Amino acid sequence: MEKTARGEATRARVIETARWLVNKKGFSNTSINDIIQATGVKKGNLYFHFPSKEELGLAILEDAAAEFYEFLRQSLRGKWPLDRLASFFDAVLEKHRRTNFVGGCIFGNTALEMSDSNPKFASIIKGVFRRWIDMIEEVLIEARQAGELPPEISPDLLAKHIVASIEGGIMMARLTKEEKDLRDCLDSLRHFLGI
Amino acid sequence: MEKTARGEATRARVIETARWLVNKKGFSNTSINDIIQATGVKKGNLYFHFPSKEELGLAILEDAAAEFYEFLRQSLRGKWPLDRLASFFDAVLEKHRRTNFVGGCIFGNTALEMSDSNPKFASIIKGVFRRWIDMIEEVLIEARQAGELPPEISPDLLAKHIVASIEGGIMMARLTKEEKDLRDCLDSLRHFLGI
Repeated sequence: MEKTARGEATRARVIETARWLVNKKGFSNTSINDIIQATGVKKGNLYFHFPSKEELGLAILEDAAAEFYEFLRQSLRGKWPLDRLASFFDAVLEKHRRTNFVGGCIFGNTALEMSDSNPKFASIIKGVFRRWIDMIEEVLIEARQAGELPPEISPDLLAKHIVASIEGGIMMARLTKEEKDLRDCLDSLRHFLGI
Repeated sequence: MEKTARGEATRARVIETARWLVNKKGFSNTSINDIIQATGVKKGNLYFHFPSKEELGLAILEDAAAEFYEFLRQSLRGKWPLDRLASFFDAVLEKHRRTNFVGGCIFGNTALEMSDSNPKFASIIKGVFRRWIDMIEEVLIEARQAGELPPEISPDLLAKHIVASIEGGIMMARLTKEEKDLRDCLDSLRHFLGI
């Protein structure tokens, strides 16, 4: 069995391919055989890296989370706080446009599929939403301090509302395959934020 | 085999029990055996009513849709248009509080689980979201006409945004089992709507 640079490459390839399958078909509908077929990795080698399907699932979520934090860091950019939010909205739409709205958000999908049945999955996904909401809340606090938002706005509630609208919008666009469904939600948010 | 009042009662009981299981565990994770065990209905009788698991799934969604339209009709009540929306928000929170945020929204769940793989499921769910958005949009048009909303608000975009926020809020509350997560989203919407 491998525990080398080649081993690491195999592990990364399995995670990437399995993540794509899970995002498209859901965790329960993705079998170990699907992953073997899609990656060409031998069964023994797969089990060497991931002793169970659950462990592979957790590794997929952790990989997706790290990538998403990087996406947040890179897309929340701009001179003024609300510019950063506008740039993030653009990046979200662009990200899902690139996949033609297939797959949607792996955290939202897995939250709905697994959160009532698997506490380990639920815990990782809760952490992702918590961190995402916190990052948006920070921007909103700065926006309020900079006078871009009225003082009666609650950054805490609004941050949650923004994340919920985006998740709901991604779900609707995934369902209809219409970019407009996500864009309309973002545009309505923009209207209320004045951006 | 039954095709009588008793048959109808069996059919309704299977739908109700299976719907609860599917909402909690997802469609793929609910087996015909789970349904037989939970209802006590014999396999032959089950297949008499629902020749395939897919047909049972479609019947569950249609049943849930009819119930949801009735819920919308009953909860969108009040003298002024925005009162109707406020009463609907209250009813949504109350509905999910009653289940302790287990299960969430069957349309959102099934949209994420099945919409990329089963066009028949996707079509029913699209219809539900379309009708829901249309009903909210009608209320918003009336609110604008009554001077409750500024004329620059787009009822179309805002209706979609409201539905997306509610779906995202239900998903987050289902994940964390915290009522606050859905309530915060609704309160932030209320703030922007001035209700």
